[in-house]
Amino acid sequence: MFENLKMGILGGGQLGAMLIRHAIDLGLNVSVMEKDANAPCSRYTSSFFCADTTSYEAVLEFGKGLDIITIEREAVNIDALRELQKQGVKVYPSPDTIAVIQDKFTQKQFLQSHNIPVAAGEAVQGKNDLYALESKLPFCLKKRRDGYDGYGVMVLKTKEDIASAFDAPCVVEELVDIKREIAVIVARNEHGEVKCYDAVAMVFSEEKFILDFQEAPAQLDEAILKEAATLAEKIAEALNLVGIVAVEMFVTKDNKVIVNELAPRPHNSGHHTIEASVTSQYEQLLRAILGLPLGDTSLLFPSLMLNILDSTSLNANKEEKIKSILAVPGAHLHWYGKIGHRPGRKIGHITIADNTMESVLSKAEIIRKVLN
Amino acid sequence: MFENLKMGILGGGQLGAMLIRHAIDLGLNVSVMEKDANAPCSRYTSSFFCADTTSYEAVLEFGKGLDIITIEREAVNIDALRELQKQGVKVYPSPDTIAVIQDKFTQKQFLQSHNIPVAAGEAVQGKNDLYALESKLPFCLKKRRDGYDGYGVMVLKTKEDIASAFDAPCVVEELVDIKREIAVIVARNEHGEVKCYDAVAMVFSEEKFILDFQEAPAQLDEAILKEAATLAEKIAEALNLVGIVAVEMFVTKDNKVIVNELAPRPHNSGHHTIEASVTSQYEQLLRAILGLPLGDTSLLFPSLMLNILDSTSLNANKEEKIKSILAVPGAHLHWYGKIGHRPGRKIGHITIADNTMESVLSKAEIIRKVLN
Repeated sequence: MFENLKMGILGGGQLGAMLIRHAIDLGLNVSVMEKDANAPCSRYTSSFFCADTTSYEAVLEFGKGLDIITIEREAVNIDALRELQKQGVKVYPSPDTIAVIQDKFTQKQFLQSHNIPVAAGEAVQGKNDLYALESKLPFCLKKRRDGYDGYGVMVLKTKEDIASAFDAPCVVEELVDIKREIAVIVARNEHGEVKCYDAVAMVFSEEKFILDFQEAPAQLDEAILKEAATLAEKIAEALNLVGIVAVEMFVTKDNKVIVNELAPRPHNSGHHTIEASVTSQYEQLLRAILGLPLGDTSLLFPSLMLNILDSTSLNANKEEKIKSILAVPGAHLHWYGKIGHRPGRKIGHITIADNTMESVLSKAEIIRKVLN
Repeated sequence: MFENLKMGILGGGQLGAMLIRHAIDLGLNVSVMEKDANAPCSRYTSSFFCADTTSYEAVLEFGKGLDIITIEREAVNIDALRELQKQGVKVYPSPDTIAVIQDKFTQKQFLQSHNIPVAAGEAVQGKNDLYALESKLPFCLKKRRDGYDGYGVMVLKTKEDIASAFDAPCVVEELVDIKREIAVIVARNEHGEVKCYDAVAMVFSEEKFILDFQEAPAQLDEAILKEAATLAEKIAEALNLVGIVAVEMFVTKDNKVIVNELAPRPHNSGHHTIEASVTSQYEQLLRAILGLPLGDTSLLFPSLMLNILDSTSLNANKEEKIKSILAVPGAHLHWYGKIGHRPGRKIGHITIADNTMESVLSKAEIIRKVLN
């Protein structure tokens, strides 16, 4: 059974730790590879491999002797994963799926080739290429690789902004007239079974592009929600996915649904599934890659998920603030236990689940006041 | 914050693993002491101390450098815990609480001294003492120490049964005319805050005294449920508890509530709290011992918890059976990943949570058929 399986996770942050939380429910052996020796996962496995997930040699070494490998970040060495796959290790999501997604331009081309609506975009090699695109200003500039939590995304409004733009391979993307941002997590197993979670609404911090909070369910017309689910399922099929993918989407002011970005792993937009859904996204990922029947994705309660970001004001009186939050009934704390400080970094989240959205929102107000 | 706290757990079985599952939510450092190198917890900590929890020297060695120690079994060395407490380590539940409970006769005396109703009982040194008690037959015989999962409990009906009775210090207990067996888990923190979970009904296997299944809520009169909660709270106060205690009780045919046994740790009767309650018993234990506000104990859904016991019939086609169970919506598998086989041993459990008890019961029927 599961205790005889050796599973590896590339990446050892909070997503990995929450995946271990659910791997415990199956009695799985979990090895983790992560270059930060103090990362959250380092505490929760007897098999922690301290090395860079982008290193060919290190990933190959890590993967030998494992039965199955999955990821909690996209920045991993694809060639090593392909080699491991040849040697008989199951790699889910597949190296091809990760490769398509880890480069935002190939991701966009892939989506376009499958008739998935996306914002128009083109690739540039570096800053100098942007001057030739002046006529397209304002536009969004995204690094092709290694962006996360808003790092690697900027909006350029005027020619003067180009001077401070990223000087790296990027995608230049037309700005979309956004009404709402939503996300759908979709799972698919090797038997071809596909299941979607309901779309959630995401609200980002304006300056930082980092997720501020998330609401489930997204309060939008049924037709839009259905369109979002259809797109997510189509993407899972197109990728020949085994695992889960978070599909971030824009709902435009004229009610079109456009795919923004994919993440082939557990995702911030699905944290609420731990408490608010029958099956969490973490359990669903394990079910998908172990060839088990996918779990029921029904939402049990309206919920709201708030990120906790590192800040000097929070640090001033952290213990008392966290105690106040824990005293709110139905507020579920996830504290990542990150070592060291870096303002703006995600250091935890709180999921509020309750019988009505009114009650969820009023509890969220109390918690926001404590956190700020 | 929590990441700077070093917590130790004495015992490394499934209860410890589920405690780690919830320690991840606080980013805690968890060290585990357990003599079985392959126990479930061995996989889920970077700090596994392979030694016997009843050894004075080993417990002392394990506890040095820890900030806080808790237990997932009663069979631990009390003297070492008292010494560690003197040295400034927080030990919750306290060594005094564990000492009172780990001996079933002192436990009974303690309860009687606090006017908690229990079945009348007396201590015997060994088998020979039983012949003098012939006139009290039939009675229940319980080993004073180290009983668990029905090991260490037997019913003697006739004089002939004495020949095969335990030959160890035991409690001889009058048989109670039982209508239902129930359990209440109660938590208390160092600030004196006390919270009870609702009583659950427990159904034991007749021959083995091992829990077969558990139903929440227990479907009994309000007055009985209230009496059960009152007794549990009174016990928490009497013990000056910091932590959680499971209080197993009998409801007699004339509707009296009698306390059967205490367990000062997470308990089989509270597994359902992971999915069916706002706060799980594991999170509640962490809140209690860390001086945090206790969590909401409300039951969210009717639920039923089924133990999975090791058996040759299950082993015959285990993987397919487990897949069938995972296909039942709302059936939550907890597979402990124990290494090796021992018929009758608990190797997992399934919690079914759903909107109505009818639906829970019908799903339980499906799962029972698969398991048998």
